[in-house]
Amino acid sequence: MFRHSQLESVKASLAHPAHAAMPLHARIQRAIRQLILDGTLGPGKPLPASRALARSLGVSRDTVESAYARLHAESFIERRVGSGSFVAEMPEFTPGHRRSMRDALLRNQAPNLSRRGNAMFRSGGVSEMLLPRPFAHGVPETRSFPLALWERLERQVLKEAGTQALLHGDPQGTPALRRAIADYVNLERGARATADRVLVLTSSQQAMTLCANMLFDPGDRIIIEDPAYYGARKAFDAAGLDCVPVRVDRQGIVIEQIMDDPRPTKAVFLTPSHQFPTGATLSLDRRLALIEWASRNQAWIIEDDYDSEFHYAGKPTACVQGLDPYDRTIYIGTFTKSLFPGLRIGYVVLPPQLVKPMAVARTLLDGHTASIAQLTLARFMEGGHFGAHVRTMRGVYSRRLGVLAELVRTHLSEFVEPRVPVGGLQMPCVLICDLSERVAIDAARRVGVELLGLSALHADGDGRPGFLMGFAAYTPDELEVAVRKLAKALRTATG
Amino acid sequence: MFRHSQLESVKASLAHPAHAAMPLHARIQRAIRQLILDGTLGPGKPLPASRALARSLGVSRDTVESAYARLHAESFIERRVGSGSFVAEMPEFTPGHRRSMRDALLRNQAPNLSRRGNAMFRSGGVSEMLLPRPFAHGVPETRSFPLALWERLERQVLKEAGTQALLHGDPQGTPALRRAIADYVNLERGARATADRVLVLTSSQQAMTLCANMLFDPGDRIIIEDPAYYGARKAFDAAGLDCVPVRVDRQGIVIEQIMDDPRPTKAVFLTPSHQFPTGATLSLDRRLALIEWASRNQAWIIEDDYDSEFHYAGKPTACVQGLDPYDRTIYIGTFTKSLFPGLRIGYVVLPPQLVKPMAVARTLLDGHTASIAQLTLARFMEGGHFGAHVRTMRGVYSRRLGVLAELVRTHLSEFVEPRVPVGGLQMPCVLICDLSERVAIDAARRVGVELLGLSALHADGDGRPGFLMGFAAYTPDELEVAVRKLAKALRTATG
Repeated sequence: MFRHSQLESVKASLAHPAHAAMPLHARIQRAIRQLILDGTLGPGKPLPASRALARSLGVSRDTVESAYARLHAESFIERRVGSGSFVAEMPEFTPGHRRSMRDALLRNQAPNLSRRGNAMFRSGGVSEMLLPRPFAHGVPETRSFPLALWERLERQVLKEAGTQALLHGDPQGTPALRRAIADYVNLERGARATADRVLVLTSSQQAMTLCANMLFDPGDRIIIEDPAYYGARKAFDAAGLDCVPVRVDRQGIVIEQIMDDPRPTKAVFLTPSHQFPTGATLSLDRRLALIEWASRNQAWIIEDDYDSEFHYAGKPTACVQGLDPYDRTIYIGTFTKSLFPGLRIGYVVLPPQLVKPMAVARTLLDGHTASIAQLTLARFMEGGHFGAHVRTMRGVYSRRLGVLAELVRTHLSEFVEPRVPVGGLQMPCVLICDLSERVAIDAARRVGVELLGLSALHADGDGRPGFLMGFAAYTPDELEVAVRKLAKALRTATG
Repeated sequence: MFRHSQLESVKASLAHPAHAAMPLHARIQRAIRQLILDGTLGPGKPLPASRALARSLGVSRDTVESAYARLHAESFIERRVGSGSFVAEMPEFTPGHRRSMRDALLRNQAPNLSRRGNAMFRSGGVSEMLLPRPFAHGVPETRSFPLALWERLERQVLKEAGTQALLHGDPQGTPALRRAIADYVNLERGARATADRVLVLTSSQQAMTLCANMLFDPGDRIIIEDPAYYGARKAFDAAGLDCVPVRVDRQGIVIEQIMDDPRPTKAVFLTPSHQFPTGATLSLDRRLALIEWASRNQAWIIEDDYDSEFHYAGKPTACVQGLDPYDRTIYIGTFTKSLFPGLRIGYVVLPPQLVKPMAVARTLLDGHTASIAQLTLARFMEGGHFGAHVRTMRGVYSRRLGVLAELVRTHLSEFVEPRVPVGGLQMPCVLICDLSERVAIDAARRVGVELLGLSALHADGDGRPGFLMGFAAYTPDELEVAVRKLAKALRTATG
């Protein structure tokens, strides 16, 4: 009782590779449901007898019966004893259905995003390279990560905790991990943290989004560095904040403009260890001045200490949080750079009065961080493996920075001047030739070399042209191959 | 050259248990830094000779020298050859420092949250029991989870992927997991999903927050069920949406009020499989009517199918997303209930035009979901273990629901009437005695029994009094012990 086209449509659906994982009866059920939904089989129309349909489709009668039984359970069809199965009458569902469907499809083409949704979409987000190649920035070396040790510790942890590790975790973070983080930042970064002031998150990006939404209303002024870390800038823009860029020099952000500005300002966002992208370290007197400013103005200091572990020249300066007696500083840390990006664990050290509000808000965002990873990381830190890994990688990265600086001086001296940083995972270079930044970056990309342009990181988009070269994730040989490729590409672009 | 009180302060800091993990020199450095920061040691003041201080503290001279060297590197002290060490002169840092510190501490007492921050804090968030006890709701049984199998699959995955699993992942989710999810929802839930329409998140809570922010502006109207799932309601409130509650009956949300309302409405939020908290299944005709309504009004249907895996009576109805030919439905799923809460993996199946905007926005929220867990889950699903686990647990939970219903009828018939649901992880009961809901819940809590009150889930806060009893995570024996305790507690409260 199916028309030929209807039968063909069911057969096509059965054979469709997308449905290969489904049992036959489910595929038949689905195909007939679709005929009903798109109006091909109208209300009251009879369905073929199961035996006849089974024969047409080359399947057993039981299979068709099973499909009909499901369609009946879903109320798509009615079954009348002695007279067979019929498409059910359904309200709100038949007249003009196909026309309204086509109209809807046409109207649908522009996604209806909210204003903030549009702003977030247009920002382009924070994209990361899945398989980093030179000189993608901000990526640590993961190929030498002690994965076997990590797996062993995870097995230990699961043996001890058993299926308790599967339950919901403390939204503030596993206590053992919070203790390990507090000890680490106190010892290595001169912070003033306690376990009950640490909030474990999934990333420093989540920390920025959380701060942006919890502390500031749309339109609030927040000072950012100029040039600035794009992930922070985009998080603040998405929250509707008024970002005020302030120039960075070799001592970090220039404080006079901040001190002298009479307009109410809610916060300053800093990357004080190795400013992104310049690599400058914020000087102690500026740190102290900003702390006093924040206290006087009841402003927050958001300190993103994202790759502070990797400092190569001289002692690292104590973090702002540890210098701040007024509890105006929110310290952001992450294991993305110091361990591996796929881990998804970051954290904040909060002023006491913000702990409870931030932890509550976090439950509304996404609950809490995955438990097994937290327990494993706590064990990794408690056992001294984190300290050891960071020390090893600091040596590796320091040597790679030296290699890259030397390679740039040897092969690229006619094009760029390297600005060798005291730490971090990337080196800025300023262009000293006639090439535009855009041309240089495009030429590099054509030969498979990644560069992040510097000028777009400036507030007005026209800072000194140049690019950032990530070096941490690449061996000296890989760095050399890429520098030689880059030199050739730039030479071709010039000529 | 330290005053006695200064020396005592350094000694106290050295002995403080919070600093036990730090090396001695770091503790001394920190203690002296604090004296400088709080103004006890003013600019230009001499520090004791290292030998003298070492003697006073009972440490080696090298230790003190090392502390001084770090303080010097941090610019806190100056070292003059032949005359010793002095506190450095620092701008912006001395006069009135202690007074401004005290003032700041006083002002600090009220945390300065934003309006949305305050709203999120005041909502109380979504709190979960860390060690669930009867009758905490929404918790699956994790004690019988095949953890050894899960660990074995993770080892396999890591052996194959190696340290590649440590890198940044696709912000939309690991392709293998997206394929497995699409196959699963198509087969089991009658969805129309493809891997490229799946976005992997950390939880259904994150899905709701993402939708609330990406699709709606503050003040936009969104229809929610009445009574409603509190986590959704709080996520929408936090985004500033105007939530319009619409009554639920035994067929799910009542659609007339929605159809007849002339005011522009942006979306409806549904828990159609087993409505939270009533357990009602949304009927097919209402599903179809809502789909037509959404298409006509260019509104979204947000379908939270959070525990649809656990349907005990009759066939589950196909999800709204699979019935919707207009792509107006956003389907939310989670592994929190079907596997374990600590996993932190949820997902959405999106209309094609929303995939890119949502994935981009997600990178601004928190990047992506942890890679190793995604790969392991994909393998678990591909191997058929997910289907097998869900089938096993469906049997377990169905029996537990039967046991609980029987226990309630036997022991609590004078107090409540159970409303046995067709699926889900909890059973609502309405109070039929003189006890108020508050008194009943408090009496239960005093004997260690958890109940979630029903009336607070109603928009006006005064729905029919009763409570929700979670049953999935507790053995029949545990259920019986708790029901007996509850009966005794309610009897005492009545008497």
